[in-house]
Amino acid sequence: MRESRLPVAVLGATGVVGQHLVRLLAHHPWFALQAVIASARSAGRPYREAVRWLLPDPIPQSVAEMSVLTAEEIPEGVRVVFSALDAASAEELEPRLARAGYVVVSNASRFRMHPGVPLLVPEVNADHLELLAFQEDFAPGCIVTNPNCSTIGLVLALRPLQERFGLEAVEVTTLQAVSGAGYPGVSALDILGDVIPYIPAEEEKLQTEPLKILGDLRGQRIEPADLRISAQANRVPVLDGHLLCVSVRLRREADAEAVRACWLAYRSPIADLGLPSAPGRPIRVLSEQDAPRPRLHAHLGAGMEVSIGRIRPCAVGHVRFVALVHNTIRGAAGAAILNAELMLRRGWLSLEHPKAGA
Amino acid sequence: MRESRLPVAVLGATGVVGQHLVRLLAHHPWFALQAVIASARSAGRPYREAVRWLLPDPIPQSVAEMSVLTAEEIPEGVRVVFSALDAASAEELEPRLARAGYVVVSNASRFRMHPGVPLLVPEVNADHLELLAFQEDFAPGCIVTNPNCSTIGLVLALRPLQERFGLEAVEVTTLQAVSGAGYPGVSALDILGDVIPYIPAEEEKLQTEPLKILGDLRGQRIEPADLRISAQANRVPVLDGHLLCVSVRLRREADAEAVRACWLAYRSPIADLGLPSAPGRPIRVLSEQDAPRPRLHAHLGAGMEVSIGRIRPCAVGHVRFVALVHNTIRGAAGAAILNAELMLRRGWLSLEHPKAGA
Amino acid sequence: MRESRLPVAVLGATGVVGQHLVRLLAHHPWFALQAVIASARSAGRPYREAVRWLLPDPIPQSVAEMSVLTAEEIPEGVRVVFSALDAASAEELEPRLARAGYVVVSNASRFRMHPGVPLLVPEVNADHLELLAFQEDFAPGCIVTNPNCSTIGLVLALRPLQERFGLEAVEVTTLQAVSGAGYPGVSALDILGDVIPYIPAEEEKLQTEPLKILGDLRGQRIEPADLRISAQANRVPVLDGHLLCVSVRLRREADAEAVRACWLAYRSPIADLGLPSAPGRPIRVLSEQDAPRPRLHAHLGAGMEVSIGRIRPCAVGHVRFVALVHNTIRGAAGAAILNAELMLRRGWLSLEHPKAGA
Amino acid sequence: MRESRLPVAVLGATGVVGQHLVRLLAHHPWFALQAVIASARSAGRPYREAVRWLLPDPIPQSVAEMSVLTAEEIPEGVRVVFSALDAASAEELEPRLARAGYVVVSNASRFRMHPGVPLLVPEVNADHLELLAFQEDFAPGCIVTNPNCSTIGLVLALRPLQERFGLEAVEVTTLQAVSGAGYPGVSALDILGDVIPYIPAEEEKLQTEPLKILGDLRGQRIEPADLRISAQANRVPVLDGHLLCVSVRLRREADAEAVRACWLAYRSPIADLGLPSAPGRPIRVLSEQDAPRPRLHAHLGAGMEVSIGRIRPCAVGHVRFVALVHNTIRGAAGAAILNAELMLRRGWLSLEHPKAGA
Repeated sequence: MRESRLPVAVLGATGVVGQHLVRLLAHHPWFALQAVIASARSAGRPYREAVRWLLPDPIPQSVAEMSVLTAEEIPEGVRVVFSALDAASAEELEPRLARAGYVVVSNASRFRMHPGVPLLVPEVNADHLELLAFQEDFAPGCIVTNPNCSTIGLVLALRPLQERFGLEAVEVTTLQAVSGAGYPGVSALDILGDVIPYIPAEEEKLQTEPLKILGDLRGQRIEPADLRISAQANRVPVLDGHLLCVSVRLRREADAEAVRACWLAYRSPIADLGLPSAPGRPIRVLSEQDAPRPRLHAHLGAGMEVSIGRIRPCAVGHVRFVALVHNTIRGAAGAAILNAELMLRRGWLSLEHPKAGA
Repeated sequence: MRESRLPVAVLGATGVVGQHLVRLLAHHPWFALQAVIASARSAGRPYREAVRWLLPDPIPQSVAEMSVLTAEEIPEGVRVVFSALDAASAEELEPRLARAGYVVVSNASRFRMHPGVPLLVPEVNADHLELLAFQEDFAPGCIVTNPNCSTIGLVLALRPLQERFGLEAVEVTTLQAVSGAGYPGVSALDILGDVIPYIPAEEEKLQTEPLKILGDLRGQRIEPADLRISAQANRVPVLDGHLLCVSVRLRREADAEAVRACWLAYRSPIADLGLPSAPGRPIRVLSEQDAPRPRLHAHLGAGMEVSIGRIRPCAVGHVRFVALVHNTIRGAAGAAILNAELMLRRGWLSLEHPKAGA
Repeated sequence: MRESRLPVAVLGATGVVGQHLVRLLAHHPWFALQAVIASARSAGRPYREAVRWLLPDPIPQSVAEMSVLTAEEIPEGVRVVFSALDAASAEELEPRLARAGYVVVSNASRFRMHPGVPLLVPEVNADHLELLAFQEDFAPGCIVTNPNCSTIGLVLALRPLQERFGLEAVEVTTLQAVSGAGYPGVSALDILGDVIPYIPAEEEKLQTEPLKILGDLRGQRIEPADLRISAQANRVPVLDGHLLCVSVRLRREADAEAVRACWLAYRSPIADLGLPSAPGRPIRVLSEQDAPRPRLHAHLGAGMEVSIGRIRPCAVGHVRFVALVHNTIRGAAGAAILNAELMLRRGWLSLEHPKAGA
Repeated sequence: MRESRLPVAVLGATGVVGQHLVRLLAHHPWFALQAVIASARSAGRPYREAVRWLLPDPIPQSVAEMSVLTAEEIPEGVRVVFSALDAASAEELEPRLARAGYVVVSNASRFRMHPGVPLLVPEVNADHLELLAFQEDFAPGCIVTNPNCSTIGLVLALRPLQERFGLEAVEVTTLQAVSGAGYPGVSALDILGDVIPYIPAEEEKLQTEPLKILGDLRGQRIEPADLRISAQANRVPVLDGHLLCVSVRLRREADAEAVRACWLAYRSPIADLGLPSAPGRPIRVLSEQDAPRPRLHAHLGAGMEVSIGRIRPCAVGHVRFVALVHNTIRGAAGAAILNAELMLRRGWLSLEHPKAGA
């Protein structure tokens, strides 16, 4: 029954990630989308008019006629808000809403590296959620974040290797889709028939976020992983799907076959939780010679799987491979929803006490 | 006057690289294009009919009506042939022509790693031409090759660093244009809105050819450079221009500023030879934050310069940068012509003795 | 139960349209895909190896390991074959199979204009199936065809106008996706950042096929519609979805509103037949200012709907509009399957008598 | 000598058309670019910093370090300003400057249809310049405009047919490049792998501007041509070059051969004026089966020629053809400069009397 689902709202609902949140939440078994929130410019208009809808699936009927609200108009009953805000808006709005008692499940980058905020990828560091017990800056609500879209693909691929072999150094060159820049985002004049070897602030995120995610929870803080990451981010004329070309140096040397076997044997540590958005297996190893390819493979597992291919020895590190992540689903909207599902399962989303675990 | 120019022919004249050779040779001050050679299928037809011309500049008028010939019909007087053959055709044809007395200046990959064949980039290893004095397999003519299109960009960028700091290890991820695959080459269904993380045989070339080019001439052979290279090659929906994302570990540690200064101070060692196709400066350092970009910068220096940007520290190697090479000009047709210009200047192309230096 | 489904085979199963046929037939409620047929080059290999799979959905598991057969090896029990052959192969193979007793449901162009062959679009001219009763050239089997991919979109859009207002003249300029050319089809070097104002044989098809489809069955033959069509076909860098820019002159003048109302009121004449692949409504009128757009709207109705937008007065004809058809689904694979569904419903596919209606 | 050239300024110098104006004026034999004008946001910065340069040719050295000025800071001595303003800015600024005595040579759409303003294409309607003698609204300066980018291609193609056969009706469907929308203009998310069958206000311009241009000067006004035009404008993922698919009904029926011969025989009526930007022949008839194509042919004649191909009978009108115009050169920046050259030659640009002809 509908009333048994947890009422939620989406902040930044008209943007690219916001649209994916709307699409994924419109029929979610645990969450009931009650409100679409956007800037004052859009507020008051029906969602279908306020949005420039960019997805091949039509706007969900249950949302099309919803009136867009401002953050001041979040309906009664909603205690969980998904944030697809840009960093600037998030800086002001997310703390305000958290301090007003909301659970903010955010895709924004602003508070990812805040020492009290979980930077969560459920298959990788579900235990980091415990940080919430000590997250005082945003009480009585809280903020939980998911990483940068490329980071998620990288840490999902690296996690099994970290557990089995240890990680020493990672070189990663990305080929990133234009949807990662939002709408209107990248100008056609910049990217048609071209590639751009620079994405503002992207390499810093790829070089720092994984250290926190792959780090250890020590009491009230995260001890970052002892790992060096060097990143080069490129924009390419692809719609969805970030490709990561990775060379990795392990702590305990292993050949390409051992690494492939490690991924094939990998089982998600949250497989038993029954989270609706969790893929059966978060990592899919592809054997085609030229896989993974964004257009053909980014959508696998409803966009929640990371595909890996081209596993082979590296003349400089130990092993080379190519990984692919659907940047707006696994790398953004789906990531936030999976985080919220984990939080619900773990008891952090009870209605009476938004910060229930505290 | 025309008769003072050296008569030459182009093998594989209807392909993509062949078209660039035709375009560049049509008005060359030292060489006179006397014949366009292609397969039996094209032979006998006017060039303008036999070719599917793909370049924005129209077919040179002096060539448009030339009758396409077979390799058996090379006109009297021609002793230098430029080869834009595929590897399979080159295997049979290049040795046959060389042994018939022709100087074969080849872009094909087949004989690049032959120990007696110079793998030549004039700014980098002009002295390797001396191998010709001992090249017996193909006498009385000879074969001289230029490297793979991506390799040329890489070695031009690396050479000044090798001389100043020494090279220990290089990781390179390429984003390569579709013109590198020839015509018809890459299917639109494979590359529209997509990238392909694999190019057959490309990574092997990038990992081995530079070792020979950057190696030392020791008597009658090349001692390969002591350097490890790890490569990942990607195809991207770009027409011309291969982008190389490079991380380099030096023998003598240097910071990004020292590396930038090294490139800025670099002067071509062949600058004084007056070779018509040699760029004033083979390396151009760009300071824009998102440069180099294929569409905007590949054509600089008539396509013969390598552009470098994004020079910065690397968390794993020492320095990271991005280099760009026009794959069909500097990386293929222009490379072969520059090789022939060097050979002419150095006395290897005298008419009476095709293998004059021997 | 599986045995209750009609066994079928796909000819040309490794091509683009063949892949869509495989995808759509793998789980079809009425047809059981028993064999994938291709050229001798592919025969004997597992389908997953023989095919270069180009669709975002993975190869259906039930087909991946099937051994590709030649047309000589069609299994016992199969009497219906779907043909996705090119015109040249169809010329020889389709009559041979039909004369051997098979029902050939073809997407190939070769026999579309044969006076005894139905050129069928179930919503438009289901009665033309009656031609089979007199189709002697291919007995004891038969050939039924669907039109060219652009033609299908055009006739579906025109049919309601023909019935209500009559048609006098049509000007159509198409923007056609690369998948329409098959694989490898269009070279990336021809279409990246470019459009090509010519598609071989396409305009002729667009100018003639609709006359037959919109014509009247008169005894044993079709009286072509009295209608002039002028077509310009362009190839554009789009993966799927042909866009048709149409200006139409009606027999009984009508304004844009009347035409829009006509489409909105239109109901499929085969809606009651319960054909599994028939869209609920074959025409969808879109009201967004810049619709239809291939990427956003071609997939509507599982790719079986034609979308129409930009309905407005025309300064030369009467009304202008833009229509969109998914070329490989509604315009090819889905069209053939819908034809077969109609034939089954109408009793033309009984197992004992391949040409049952005759 | 430099001082003999007429000093000019460019309004809107940082936009796409502004960049082409800067590129074309930097080395112009008659005009000396003295100032680059942009909005207050850019003013005071060196041009190379204020602009996001998008052209493959580098910024002209003579302009790179110029300080961007506001319209209030046009240097002494400048009396001719080229306007690449958007319509909104043009509405206010162009009349103000004209009334201050400047000759405004504008690419903006705002005043094109003003009855006193020449809408000029020198090869087509050079006599319309005479309107300036009566243009009182903007005295003591004046405004002269060039048409919409697609319109210019259309009228150049139609003019010889109008003169020889008369024109009754024209249907045109365009495939327009993204550079026509300026920068950032079209979002990559809207156009990658897609086409958009709508461009705001474009069809109206294509349907009305040609009537004025092809009209007759009658005393102080233009009598519009008696001609119906129906237009459909599409945006396609092409960088430069608008393709026009045209069907034309003539006053005196002619077949495709007669029309082709008409274009081949056509000589520019301004050929004898020696205008530096005038192409030798404004119309180039291409015979390749799939020409003209934007990437290969838009740049012909330095971007100032209109290419025509696919001339053939039309089943609805009389003749069909495809024309191609470089939208930012012949369709914008080059058009304005050619207009100014004609004005200079005809004596409308004398320094003492900005409105000299009046």
